[in-house]
Amino acid sequence: MTTLRKTALFLMLLVATVPTLAAEGEHPKLIMTKAGVEKIRAELGSVPLFDASLQSVRAEVDAEIELGIDTPVPLDYSGGYTHERHKRNFFIMQKAGVLYQILEDDKYANYVRDMLFQYEAMYKDLPLHPKTRSYARGKLFWQCLNDANWLVYVSQAYDTIYDYLSAEERATLEKNLFRPFADHISIDSPQFFNRVHNHSTWGNAAVGMIGLVMDDDELVQRALHGIPFDEIDTAAKDNDGGFIYDKDGRAGFLANLDEPFSPDGYYTEGPYYQRYAMYPFLIFAQGLHNAKPELKIFENNGEVLLKAVDALLNLSDADGEFFPLNDGQKGMSWHAGSIVTAVDIAYHMGGEDPRLLSIAEAQGQVLLDDAGFAVAAAIRDGKTQPFAKASVNLSDGPDGTQGGVAILRYGDEDLTLVYKYAAQGLSHGHYDKLSYSLYEKGDEVLQDYGLARFVNIEQKGGGNYLKENKTWAKQTIAHNTIIQNETSHFKGKYEIGSRHHSELYFYDDTNSEAQVVSATESNAYPGTELQRTMAMIKNRNFSKRFLLDILKVRSDTKNQYDLPFYFMGQVLQVNFDYDTPSTLSALGKKNGYQHLYVEGQGSPGADNTKFSWMGHGKFYTLTAVTEDSDELLFTRIGANDPEFNLRRDAAFMLRRKAAGDTIFATVVEPHGSYSPVSELALDSNSNIAALNVVHDDENYTAVAIEDLEGHTSVFILANTDASVTTKHQLKIDGRKYHWAGPYHYSGPD
Amino acid sequence: MTTLRKTALFLMLLVATVPTLAAEGEHPKLIMTKAGVEKIRAELGSVPLFDASLQSVRAEVDAEIELGIDTPVPLDYSGGYTHERHKRNFFIMQKAGVLYQILEDDKYANYVRDMLFQYEAMYKDLPLHPKTRSYARGKLFWQCLNDANWLVYVSQAYDTIYDYLSAEERATLEKNLFRPFADHISIDSPQFFNRVHNHSTWGNAAVGMIGLVMDDDELVQRALHGIPFDEIDTAAKDNDGGFIYDKDGRAGFLANLDEPFSPDGYYTEGPYYQRYAMYPFLIFAQGLHNAKPELKIFENNGEVLLKAVDALLNLSDADGEFFPLNDGQKGMSWHAGSIVTAVDIAYHMGGEDPRLLSIAEAQGQVLLDDAGFAVAAAIRDGKTQPFAKASVNLSDGPDGTQGGVAILRYGDEDLTLVYKYAAQGLSHGHYDKLSYSLYEKGDEVLQDYGLARFVNIEQKGGGNYLKENKTWAKQTIAHNTIIQNETSHFKGKYEIGSRHHSELYFYDDTNSEAQVVSATESNAYPGTELQRTMAMIKNRNFSKRFLLDILKVRSDTKNQYDLPFYFMGQVLQVNFDYDTPSTLSALGKKNGYQHLYVEGQGSPGADNTKFSWMGHGKFYTLTAVTEDSDELLFTRIGANDPEFNLRRDAAFMLRRKAAGDTIFATVVEPHGSYSPVSELALDSNSNIAALNVVHDDENYTAVAIEDLEGHTSVFILANTDASVTTKHQLKIDGRKYHWAGPYHYSGPD
Repeated sequence: MTTLRKTALFLMLLVATVPTLAAEGEHPKLIMTKAGVEKIRAELGSVPLFDASLQSVRAEVDAEIELGIDTPVPLDYSGGYTHERHKRNFFIMQKAGVLYQILEDDKYANYVRDMLFQYEAMYKDLPLHPKTRSYARGKLFWQCLNDANWLVYVSQAYDTIYDYLSAEERATLEKNLFRPFADHISIDSPQFFNRVHNHSTWGNAAVGMIGLVMDDDELVQRALHGIPFDEIDTAAKDNDGGFIYDKDGRAGFLANLDEPFSPDGYYTEGPYYQRYAMYPFLIFAQGLHNAKPELKIFENNGEVLLKAVDALLNLSDADGEFFPLNDGQKGMSWHAGSIVTAVDIAYHMGGEDPRLLSIAEAQGQVLLDDAGFAVAAAIRDGKTQPFAKASVNLSDGPDGTQGGVAILRYGDEDLTLVYKYAAQGLSHGHYDKLSYSLYEKGDEVLQDYGLARFVNIEQKGGGNYLKENKTWAKQTIAHNTIIQNETSHFKGKYEIGSRHHSELYFYDDTNSEAQVVSATESNAYPGTELQRTMAMIKNRNFSKRFLLDILKVRSDTKNQYDLPFYFMGQVLQVNFDYDTPSTLSALGKKNGYQHLYVEGQGSPGADNTKFSWMGHGKFYTLTAVTEDSDELLFTRIGANDPEFNLRRDAAFMLRRKAAGDTIFATVVEPHGSYSPVSELALDSNSNIAALNVVHDDENYTAVAIEDLEGHTSVFILANTDASVTTKHQLKIDGRKYHWAGPYHYSGPD
Repeated sequence: MTTLRKTALFLMLLVATVPTLAAEGEHPKLIMTKAGVEKIRAELGSVPLFDASLQSVRAEVDAEIELGIDTPVPLDYSGGYTHERHKRNFFIMQKAGVLYQILEDDKYANYVRDMLFQYEAMYKDLPLHPKTRSYARGKLFWQCLNDANWLVYVSQAYDTIYDYLSAEERATLEKNLFRPFADHISIDSPQFFNRVHNHSTWGNAAVGMIGLVMDDDELVQRALHGIPFDEIDTAAKDNDGGFIYDKDGRAGFLANLDEPFSPDGYYTEGPYYQRYAMYPFLIFAQGLHNAKPELKIFENNGEVLLKAVDALLNLSDADGEFFPLNDGQKGMSWHAGSIVTAVDIAYHMGGEDPRLLSIAEAQGQVLLDDAGFAVAAAIRDGKTQPFAKASVNLSDGPDGTQGGVAILRYGDEDLTLVYKYAAQGLSHGHYDKLSYSLYEKGDEVLQDYGLARFVNIEQKGGGNYLKENKTWAKQTIAHNTIIQNETSHFKGKYEIGSRHHSELYFYDDTNSEAQVVSATESNAYPGTELQRTMAMIKNRNFSKRFLLDILKVRSDTKNQYDLPFYFMGQVLQVNFDYDTPSTLSALGKKNGYQHLYVEGQGSPGADNTKFSWMGHGKFYTLTAVTEDSDELLFTRIGANDPEFNLRRDAAFMLRRKAAGDTIFATVVEPHGSYSPVSELALDSNSNIAALNVVHDDENYTAVAIEDLEGHTSVFILANTDASVTTKHQLKIDGRKYHWAGPYHYSGPD
């Protein structure tokens, strides 16, 4: 018998000797409260958004009750019937429990009770799930993660019908179902439960929430602090390549609350996983707040949970869709159920920020609990204010010192830059240091590919990560950043990447003419220093804001550099000659290059290379300072993709060979529009006559932008001193520039 | 001197001898009327949609007046500055004139007058436009077509300020501008003016409208009846390959009204050009109705103009976007200005059909004239009814006997089939006999590629047709229809294709379980008879309606057949093995095949080949009866496309070699949905267990569809008798079927 098993046995024996049943009459107490339920019942029918949500949930649950209960023997991966049925069961149980509390109709309590007893009957003898792919197999589902999902919801359902059940019924459920269920996903699965990872957060919340309902403090403590590391094997890794063992020896909910969030509320895995993790974070926190107010859980770590909600909402485009940083599925947005929870709880627990109400209105639904009621009542009372998103710089890392993500935009979100100079992002991180993506009004201009996965679509690899996620989506070449010698950052190795992060050089969004962020990366390619500075510029001679990008490379060696631009749309025009091959071959053999076809190949015809395209009815032009010896490539994703798992998206790529110290200066310029209804092409040409690097040495780099009217704007970067007070002067082409701070921008002369 | 020039000279001399000035005090009389204007003025401020349209037009015109008048020397193709400026000028003049009438503010009249005199000063000595690409060069624009556009709008502007001008001003404008302008686009350009073609319709309307305003009956007669053919060279062809000479020797507006429209109002070039042509048809008709009511123009040819509006509105998807049959640019919809005109005039002149009001509401604007006012007032008065689109069969050809286009759908437009068995469609026609496209709720499921052109986007071939329109978009392989021996229908020759059309076998939309259309084509490949029958089936064991497609081939020779499916979305799953090549090569060398890359190649692994994909968050499965020797191809557009003019869209293709008589039976089955927000994949698998051709001989073809529950539905086609009364019986697998009419469908047993 292993130490682990012995400990589990010991704990089980221990538990058997203490009273585990909470007192009657105290429930609901987890997410709904007795006082909250009374208030809801009293105001039913007078709070439109709450009433509408109630009606919708009631219709959904009634339809399920009509269908009857099914708890099939577990069999499938996600997307398959048994998986989806059990998933639906826990959602519906939670909702039925809420309806019971609000409507006081026994049919809902009966439904939850009957389903729980079907699970109780099955669970006692249930083996591990037959599918073996997971590093931590569940019983109802193929992975513990989904079992934890189940328990997070079912804890709430149990809480709502607690007083409806007899003491005997409760004892049976707790002994045969809830307690062994909680043990399986924790003690039996430490590689799942004891990590600093979104998976573990679900596990922690599940164990803690059932513990709160059962008044079982041992479970609550296990949830908060994890299993002592001396009781488990810490050398194991999960199937994403992450480590179980946290370097500080911490585990449990409080560790998960501290470590993946930066002080700004940025979650190191990125917004897609933050969205997923927000539910267990907030729902368990709400439960802890209600049942253990002395923990002051929302004040924890500088109110990080509330900051996280704000950060997450800011990590979205104009349509509320989250930026697909790292492993992120496109299309996920603040309409997701977990964000309804996040917004409602953040409003309720975080000082009633009226901007959150506009998002709740857009969501069109609220939680059927105290938090949701507070939101719906405030909307009814006309308290809504707009959630205007401004530029923001979000630090990464528990101390906020491991790089970050900067978003440059104006209130109209006409143009939005997402610039990533963060840490690795745990096992869901991509090798994309100093990469960026660009949006106009919610449409992608230059895309981040996101993940290579069709989440929950069984036909595509069981709905799980596809192998192209590793061979393509995580690789550096899949991103709008620089690649040295066709090799990914950190050689594409998690063990290396996870030890490093980029560094902020400076961030300044205070200038209405130029918002600037600059960051450096020294470890992606040892011996090579990268500095990328991005400025969103409002120039009176240009109809729209544009993006200036100065990427400076200092290297001990001569290398090849590729700089791709994953433009969204159709090629309009270029100013150079190129050949198109009669057959398409892959650009390379590995590191993601094996997935790119070369559709065209040319070389610059002038000092500036211009490439324009049309996407979503808008025009864009890339203007790049290029050298005669540069190569210009048209590529398209899709090579070596026998299952058609990748989208056939295009890129335009600058390739510079045998470069030592070098600089890439580019402008991405949005202009004009096209409508297939009016068939009017407005402002369809670039307004840039010339883009030049007019100065570049160790101390300063300067770029001049000449427009078609002959006016020149200048952007100067101080390369070695980011202090805002340092005074600089520089003479360029006979003209003297004086300024203070890390950059200077002067508009058209 | 040519006959043509002599005639022109003669006519000009003739004109100089007759009074050309209309009486004062009768204007406006063309589109606005004196009585109408009085009514509008009286109710201003009480008709919301009219008031809103007025406000919007006023803001637009005021901004232009602020900018000042510019009438640059003509220089550019469409998309270029001078082209777009002159185009904007005529739109704004028409609007300014209308504002003058409604608001009685002289600034609008002055603006029109001043601009007209700038044109007058320039036009006198203006040579042909410097760009030489057109078969009929204009003066303000590179082609007469755009000059005609100008005059159609400017006639209206002139009419509205007619009484504001002095007699001397009018005489100057008419002598130096309008009359020579009208002559240039007619007498000087018969190859443009005298055809049965949408170009000529614009020319006819332009000449006729200015004639009505000037009270110049010679111009009006020229517009209505064309130039006598004995005065022009009829051997010339236009640059689309069309003939000038009409086979019946007719020309002018009345000919254009008769010939391209079928009795059902279908316009033989297709909806994209119908939309374009509707404006001159309706606006000139409105002018004729007002100025020459004795012509009863709207009653002409069985009220074909009113029927045409109804037909056109029906040729749209659930979002109001027109099906891109023949040369059609996707995205064009009933929001286009010409359709605002069409809907308003059709309402006003066509018995005030209240369904048109719902479209006007969706358009959000009305014409600022009598028709627009009638629409806005009716909307204000609550008369709006929905425009529910049902299935419809639209005949093609002036007598309705040249094939047609059938649209099968239910009121919800969940699934919409567009089946084309029409005539060639003049010079904008595609070689796509018996082709179809499929839509679900306004999203393309199987696409018609449309045209290869970026209309008015100068960077792409001057905004004109690209050469890929001929090499790809018109070719048969670009469509969802059958191709014999890699050769387009009629060898892709207009001279052959324009002599033929497909034939309707039968159309029946009366059965709620199966709507069916069947047509034949005997001339696309001499010696080969094609019959394609499409049934949209509602089966109680399927969650959505599906499409059954039976394509029967009878040929004297052994041939290769390709049947492509241009699916929109990403491949999910197939049930056969295939190889993917390491380099991509073109499928063929000509007839459009040179533009297709082969991404994969396989052969059937079972009697049924299954191919499923996901697009727009919905799932689809193609189930096809295949033979062991068939080839299955994955193709993608983009080969031999050096300018990136084509979209990189995919197709799945069935290829059958050395077949004589053969049959292709397929089902396209929409099922389920996927949301990236909920991440739920619902009903993601096909419900078809087996598709079989259970009977096929000269007289009958029968297909059986077995669902996953084991129930079988049967569709039987009588191949030689489309009479609805003929009684049939057939024994299949021991079971006897009895029915009357050309088909039998029995749902799940």
